[in-house]
Amino acid sequence: MGKQFIQKIWLGILLLAVACSAPEEVKDVSEPQIEYLVSWNEGPNKQSIIDFVKATTTPGSPDFVAPEDRIATFDNDGTLWSEQPYYFQLQFAIDRVKSMAADHPEWRDDELMNAAAMGDIEKLMSFGEEGLLKIVMATHSGISEEDFAKEVTDWINTARHPKTNLLYKEMVFQPMLEVLEYFRAHDFKTFIVSGGGIDFMRPWTKEVYGIPSEQVIGSSLKAKFELVDGKGQVIKTDGLNFIDDKEGKPVAIHQHIGKRPNAAFGNSDGDLAMLQYSFGTSGKSLQVYIHHTDGDREWAYDRESPIGRLNKGLDEAAANGWTVVDMKSDWATIYPKN
Amino acid sequence: MGKQFIQKIWLGILLLAVACSAPEEVKDVSEPQIEYLVSWNEGPNKQSIIDFVKATTTPGSPDFVAPEDRIATFDNDGTLWSEQPYYFQLQFAIDRVKSMAADHPEWRDDELMNAAAMGDIEKLMSFGEEGLLKIVMATHSGISEEDFAKEVTDWINTARHPKTNLLYKEMVFQPMLEVLEYFRAHDFKTFIVSGGGIDFMRPWTKEVYGIPSEQVIGSSLKAKFELVDGKGQVIKTDGLNFIDDKEGKPVAIHQHIGKRPNAAFGNSDGDLAMLQYSFGTSGKSLQVYIHHTDGDREWAYDRESPIGRLNKGLDEAAANGWTVVDMKSDWATIYPKN
Repeated sequence: MGKQFIQKIWLGILLLAVACSAPEEVKDVSEPQIEYLVSWNEGPNKQSIIDFVKATTTPGSPDFVAPEDRIATFDNDGTLWSEQPYYFQLQFAIDRVKSMAADHPEWRDDELMNAAAMGDIEKLMSFGEEGLLKIVMATHSGISEEDFAKEVTDWINTARHPKTNLLYKEMVFQPMLEVLEYFRAHDFKTFIVSGGGIDFMRPWTKEVYGIPSEQVIGSSLKAKFELVDGKGQVIKTDGLNFIDDKEGKPVAIHQHIGKRPNAAFGNSDGDLAMLQYSFGTSGKSLQVYIHHTDGDREWAYDRESPIGRLNKGLDEAAANGWTVVDMKSDWATIYPKN
Repeated sequence: MGKQFIQKIWLGILLLAVACSAPEEVKDVSEPQIEYLVSWNEGPNKQSIIDFVKATTTPGSPDFVAPEDRIATFDNDGTLWSEQPYYFQLQFAIDRVKSMAADHPEWRDDELMNAAAMGDIEKLMSFGEEGLLKIVMATHSGISEEDFAKEVTDWINTARHPKTNLLYKEMVFQPMLEVLEYFRAHDFKTFIVSGGGIDFMRPWTKEVYGIPSEQVIGSSLKAKFELVDGKGQVIKTDGLNFIDDKEGKPVAIHQHIGKRPNAAFGNSDGDLAMLQYSFGTSGKSLQVYIHHTDGDREWAYDRESPIGRLNKGLDEAAANGWTVVDMKSDWATIYPKN
């Protein structure tokens, strides 16, 4: 073969070698080039979250936690979405009373139910927790789980907050959506642990938070099994099953998950026991309180608030070195942009 | 540039194009070359399981189920592991009574507790379900969740069945381990839904079945939250919380999962309601009864058995076209080989 031919072959091989082994994008083996927590302003609070995730998920770290043990629990009202001037589920219950009132003439003689039908919140609140429970029982029972889920879905897709005019499901906290994503990207299982109704949250938490129904824990009424033509269904009944609040939260976590949360997020004294439970984890853990400090973009409240009171929790957080997020200064945005 | 140079370039480009686009290994886009259910003998029962998984997981199938909705529930006693001559957890409770007896002299005057301490099973069973519950309450309460998990772990790693001399945790059904793998390989979430104690199962179901604690549903005693030096812990108490049996199973599934199981596996009438609940799924579903027909390799029992009675369930399975697995003829092996 001629010298020129050989030269062509070499050139070809050279080009081949260069082209086929073109260096791949330089991989940062510690972290892919994705930016997390972009709505969080730089500071010690943001850093505490990052430090925790890095310490527990980096291979070789002395605080490494096996993926199957990575459990992060989140309160809902006041932690993942707003809760003022009162829990959004209460508005759902009131709307249910209004739509059911025609079929329940006896409610007109009931002070509480009548107040709900009239939308008289102040009167309603005067009946306290027992009153709220009675309204929930009246409007969340005697209905199949599928039918109830449909009622919730219809409501959550249409009901708007009177102050912001946003859909209630748009009043979720963008920085917390980013926390959920960040944790899941590092193989944490994210759970909701809320005092709110488990069946009120489940129809929409997957779409809104990326949290599937089996990872939602909440308060519940009783339910019973019924057979219709050989096929079974579950009907919600009006007995109280469980209130998933305060000391109930660690108990519910024990029952539903069977693992301690190494990371727990809350916003009120109702979450204190859950954070204390997380704090008792052997191994590195993270406890975060979301402190409502922004009266302009959301609502500012803590020690004196009838809804979402954060009083004892603030003191314990300080004593224990927990992270206390200041919504006003830590969050570049509150709600997702539309 | 000279003609020869251009020729060199063309040659190089040609070689490049050929080498860099060398055909990849031919991919079978329908199913990777893994064999599932290898301990299942060919037949309509094995086929019914395969048909269900294919129909619900093949893109484009009219019965396609979105991954997040793929829920498979499995009874434990008699479905995933043996349960004769009585539930293995009862042996755990009896062994606990024996080891705790020295600290409870009052048990000597208690007919039931004394029968347990003496290992007098017949006497013990004569007290019925209420008696079993009392023994469980006496031996599963007043202890932290971590300490109880340790007791269970120590026992499950050492206790042997008197007939087979296998560890109880080795008396799991190899063909069912393969079903669990097969379902998970097709993005089903596998759950245990058992009448047995949730805290008895959780310490070992991940290792033995690949089912993590948050996917184990069972019967439970109450629990309470306690604070020790600012850190929280959960203590099991002796009140009854929930019996996850019969109609309780669909209720527990509703509470824990919030989705119907499109596939449900059981072995006794205690699982009938769960199978009826699965049968009510809108969309393709699978209901399977494991029928204990093999007196040589395991135990043969059904309509008359005090433990794991399968009577009404057999009739309904026939009427509804459910799959009834014949352990003797469908399973090439019972327990995993060691």
